[in-house]
Amino acid sequence: MAKELKEVVNREENYSQWYNNLVVKAGLAENSAVRGCMVIKPYGYAIWEKMQGILDKMFKETGHQNAYFPLFIPKSFFSKEANHVEGFAKECAVVTHYRLKNNPDGSGVVVDPDAKLEEELIVRPTSETIIWNTYKNWIQSYRDLPILCNQWANVVRWEMRTRLFLRTAEFLWQEGHTAHATREEAMDEARRMIHVYADFAEKYLALPVIIGHKSENERFAGAEDTLTIEALMQDGKALQSGTSHFLAQNFAKAFDVTFTNKEGKLDYVWATSWGVSTRLMGALIMAHSDNNGLVLPPKLAPIQVVMIPIYRGEEQLREINPRLDEIAARLKAKGISVKIDDRDNVRSGFKFAEWELKGVPVRLAMGPRDLENGTIELVRRDTLEKETVPQEGLVDRIEKLMEEIQQSIFDKAAKFRETMTTKVDTYDEFKKVLDEKGGFILAHWDGTVETEERIKDETKATIRCIPIDAPEEKGVCMVTGKPSSRRVIFARAY
Amino acid sequence: MAKELKEVVNREENYSQWYNNLVVKAGLAENSAVRGCMVIKPYGYAIWEKMQGILDKMFKETGHQNAYFPLFIPKSFFSKEANHVEGFAKECAVVTHYRLKNNPDGSGVVVDPDAKLEEELIVRPTSETIIWNTYKNWIQSYRDLPILCNQWANVVRWEMRTRLFLRTAEFLWQEGHTAHATREEAMDEARRMIHVYADFAEKYLALPVIIGHKSENERFAGAEDTLTIEALMQDGKALQSGTSHFLAQNFAKAFDVTFTNKEGKLDYVWATSWGVSTRLMGALIMAHSDNNGLVLPPKLAPIQVVMIPIYRGEEQLREINPRLDEIAARLKAKGISVKIDDRDNVRSGFKFAEWELKGVPVRLAMGPRDLENGTIELVRRDTLEKETVPQEGLVDRIEKLMEEIQQSIFDKAAKFRETMTTKVDTYDEFKKVLDEKGGFILAHWDGTVETEERIKDETKATIRCIPIDAPEEKGVCMVTGKPSSRRVIFARAY
Repeated sequence: MAKELKEVVNREENYSQWYNNLVVKAGLAENSAVRGCMVIKPYGYAIWEKMQGILDKMFKETGHQNAYFPLFIPKSFFSKEANHVEGFAKECAVVTHYRLKNNPDGSGVVVDPDAKLEEELIVRPTSETIIWNTYKNWIQSYRDLPILCNQWANVVRWEMRTRLFLRTAEFLWQEGHTAHATREEAMDEARRMIHVYADFAEKYLALPVIIGHKSENERFAGAEDTLTIEALMQDGKALQSGTSHFLAQNFAKAFDVTFTNKEGKLDYVWATSWGVSTRLMGALIMAHSDNNGLVLPPKLAPIQVVMIPIYRGEEQLREINPRLDEIAARLKAKGISVKIDDRDNVRSGFKFAEWELKGVPVRLAMGPRDLENGTIELVRRDTLEKETVPQEGLVDRIEKLMEEIQQSIFDKAAKFRETMTTKVDTYDEFKKVLDEKGGFILAHWDGTVETEERIKDETKATIRCIPIDAPEEKGVCMVTGKPSSRRVIFARAY
Repeated sequence: MAKELKEVVNREENYSQWYNNLVVKAGLAENSAVRGCMVIKPYGYAIWEKMQGILDKMFKETGHQNAYFPLFIPKSFFSKEANHVEGFAKECAVVTHYRLKNNPDGSGVVVDPDAKLEEELIVRPTSETIIWNTYKNWIQSYRDLPILCNQWANVVRWEMRTRLFLRTAEFLWQEGHTAHATREEAMDEARRMIHVYADFAEKYLALPVIIGHKSENERFAGAEDTLTIEALMQDGKALQSGTSHFLAQNFAKAFDVTFTNKEGKLDYVWATSWGVSTRLMGALIMAHSDNNGLVLPPKLAPIQVVMIPIYRGEEQLREINPRLDEIAARLKAKGISVKIDDRDNVRSGFKFAEWELKGVPVRLAMGPRDLENGTIELVRRDTLEKETVPQEGLVDRIEKLMEEIQQSIFDKAAKFRETMTTKVDTYDEFKKVLDEKGGFILAHWDGTVETEERIKDETKATIRCIPIDAPEEKGVCMVTGKPSSRRVIFARAY
C-alpha cells in the first residue's frame, strides 16, 4: 500500500488520474471485465450504504415508502412520451433473446436463435415509463393520491466514455416517483425533495450546494421543470449531484393515468421524480480529498477512528493492546466506529499511509512512552495536525472532534467555492475566467436555448442552474446584449 | 377491500389461487407488464426490507462485508465451469445490442443493427463467474484471505411458469461469495451460513426448518456440497428456503485463482456461496396465512398494532382520538409500530377485514363505552381471539403479546410439520402418503441418482435433503431394496 500510495499522481499534476488512482488505491471501486461496469469494493460500498441509510430515513420521514419495479421495460414504452424517448431510449442495453444453447461445435454456448423475444426489453435507464404504466392500475380517485414511492435500484445507460462512480454504464441509485392530485402539490413535492438532497449533501457529504432550476436545454427528458443541486469540485468543475423533476401531466398523459378529483371530474395525475446515485461517491471524493488520499467526513466514514500500536516485540504489544482495546470499547459505546490495526507484517509508517489514503478521520497511535505517560498521539486526517494528548478525556475529545472535523471539511469546501465564484459582465471576461480560474461564473443570459448552445459550443461551459434564490438584477446578456433579469450560474461540468 | 376480501378463494378450495389472491389483495406484489417480472408493492417491500435489515446484521456479525458486482456477465464466462454452464447459462436474458434508433417509418424506436455487441452479455442469474473473475485480482497470498463478501442484488432467470415471489424471472436476493485458504475453513463457512439462515427462518419468519445436504442431483451447479433449509407449507409441499454451497476449488480452477499459502506453495482458493431471495416472502405467506388473509409474525410485520376508533359523528371521534394517540405514542416509545386508521369513508367492519387481510398482529378498537370504562378491545390476528382489556397496563400487555404471538405462530407451524412428517418403509406406502396426506416423508434410499430420478418421475417427489442430524439407522431402499444407512426426507416441492 505504501508502494501503491506512491503511485497516486498529484492532484495538481493530473486531476483526472489523481481521482482514478484514489478510487482504485483506496479500495473504493475498480473497473470490471464488463466494459463500463464497475465493481464497488467493500470499503466503497460501506460508504454508499451509509449514504443509503441516511437518505432512506430522510425519505421515510417525509412520508415516502419503498417499492420495487421491474428491471426490464418493453421497448414500446419508451415511444409513449415524446421527449423521454429522445433523452433515454438511445444508448441502452437491449435484451433480444432469453436462451443460450450449447454450440454444436462444442466451443461453449451461443445465443439460441429460436429464443428471440417478440418485443425487445430495455434494461431500465430510469423507470418513469414502467412505473406510470403500473400507477395506471393503482389510481382511480383522489383518495388513492398521493402515491409517494421510492425505489433503490440499479440502472443502465450505455456510456461510451466511463469513469468510476462519475459515469458508468451500470450505476446504483434511488428514484422517487410520486403521483399527485394537483399541480401545486406535485411542485411542492419536487421542491421538498431537492431540499432533502441539499440537506443531505451539506450535512453529511459536507458539500455546499446551490439549488436551482435547470435551463430548458438541460432539463430531464419529459419534465416541465428540473431542480438540481450543483456542487463545485476542487478542479473548478461543477458536478450535478441530485435532481428533482416536476413532470406535470406528461407521463399521466402518455400512459393514460386519470383520476376522479374531489369535484367528481376526471383529470390526469400530476407527477414528480427525483434521484441521486453512486455519482455522489465521485462528488465526495473529488470535493475533499488531497494528495495523501481520501478525506472522509466523519458522518460517512465507515471507520471513524483507527488505532495503531507502536511497539518493538511481542511483549510491548501485549502491554499496549489491552489499553487500546479499552479505549476502543469506550469509543464504540459512544457510537464511534473504531479499527485497531495490529498487523505484524507491515510497519507503522505503512499503516499511517494506508489509513490516510483511506481517509479515516482520526488516527491514534500509542507507543511504550505513551503508555508510561498516559498519553496518545492523535492525528486529524483533514488537517494532518498531530498532537500528543492525555488519555484522560480522550473519548469526549474525539466525540467533539468528529463534529469539528465534519464542520471544518464543510467550511473548507464552502470557502473554496466562495473564492471560485466569479461575477462577470462580458463574454471575453467569461472566457478568460473559465480558462484561467474555472469555478462558478455568475453572468447574465438572455434566456434562449440558442445563446446557451452557442456558449456551450464555444467554451464547453453550460448553465448549471438558475439559483432559486437568485436576486433580481437587471442586466444584459453577455453574448447577445438582450435584457436579462437575473444572473445564472455557468461552469464546465462533469 | 371488503369486496376484495370476498374475492380471496378459500385455502381448502384452491390453495394456489388462495396464495395468489392473498399476495395481490394484501398489496404485497402484482404482475407487471413484463412477462414473469413482478412489482413489489410498498407493503410487500416493507416486509422484505425488514428481512434484509435483520439478515444484513447477521451477516455483518459473522464478519461479512457488502460489495457490488456488475449486472452483466460476458457470455464466455459461463462456459468456464462445466457444471455451472449446464445449470445456469440456458434460460437467461441476453443483451445483444446497446442502442435503439428512431424507426425510419416514424413508428417509434427499433434496435440499431449497427450497435451489436461483440460478445453478448448475460443478465446475471447468479454471480459466481463474474465474482471469481474479480477475486483473481484480489488474491495473491494467504494474507488476502478469507474474503467474506455479500451482495444484495437483482438476478434474472428466464422462467416459463412464474408465480409471484415463488418463481419470477427477476427476483431480489443476497448472494454471499467467500474465498478461503483451506477446505476446512470453506466448509465451516458453508455450515455457518446455513445455520444463520435457519436461525433467521425460525426466529423471525417463525418457520421451522430442517437443515440438510442436497443429494447430488439437486446440488447447485458447480458445488461439491449444497446445504439447504427446507420448510413445509400448509398444503403439505416443501419449500427450499435458503442454500449454502461448498464450491471446493471449482471456480478457482475455472478462473485460475491461486494463492501462496503459509508454506509458500501455490494452491487454488476454496470457495462458498450462499443465498436467500424474495422467495422467503412466499414461504412467509404460505406457511402462516389463513382464509382471512396474511398472518405476519410480529418481528416482520411493518405495522404491529392497528388502532381503530369506533364512533358515530365527529364529536365522539374527537373524544376517542386523543386517547388513541396517547396509547400509540407509548407503544411507539417501546419500539412497536402502530397505525391509527381513522378514515371516515369506510366502515369499521371494512377496516377490520382489511387489516386482517394484511396480517397485522394486533388490532385495538376503542368505542365510547371503552372510553367511559377505561377499556379497549384487543384482537390477536393469529388466533382471532377477541377480548376487552383495561387500558391500564395495555402497553406492557402488548409488548408481551408480541413475543407470545411470534412464538405461537412458530409453535403452530412446528406442530403442523410434526403431524405432517411420516416415516414409511415401502414404496407403496410412500405413494399413498404422498397422495393422501403430503408433507415430509422419511424413507430409506439407496443413494443413487437413478433411484432418485425414478421416484421423481413416478411420484413428482424429490429428496429435499439428507438432514445433518439424521440418526444412523440401517435399512433398505424402499424402491430397490439395496442397503441404506439413514433415512432422507422426500416431499413434493415448490
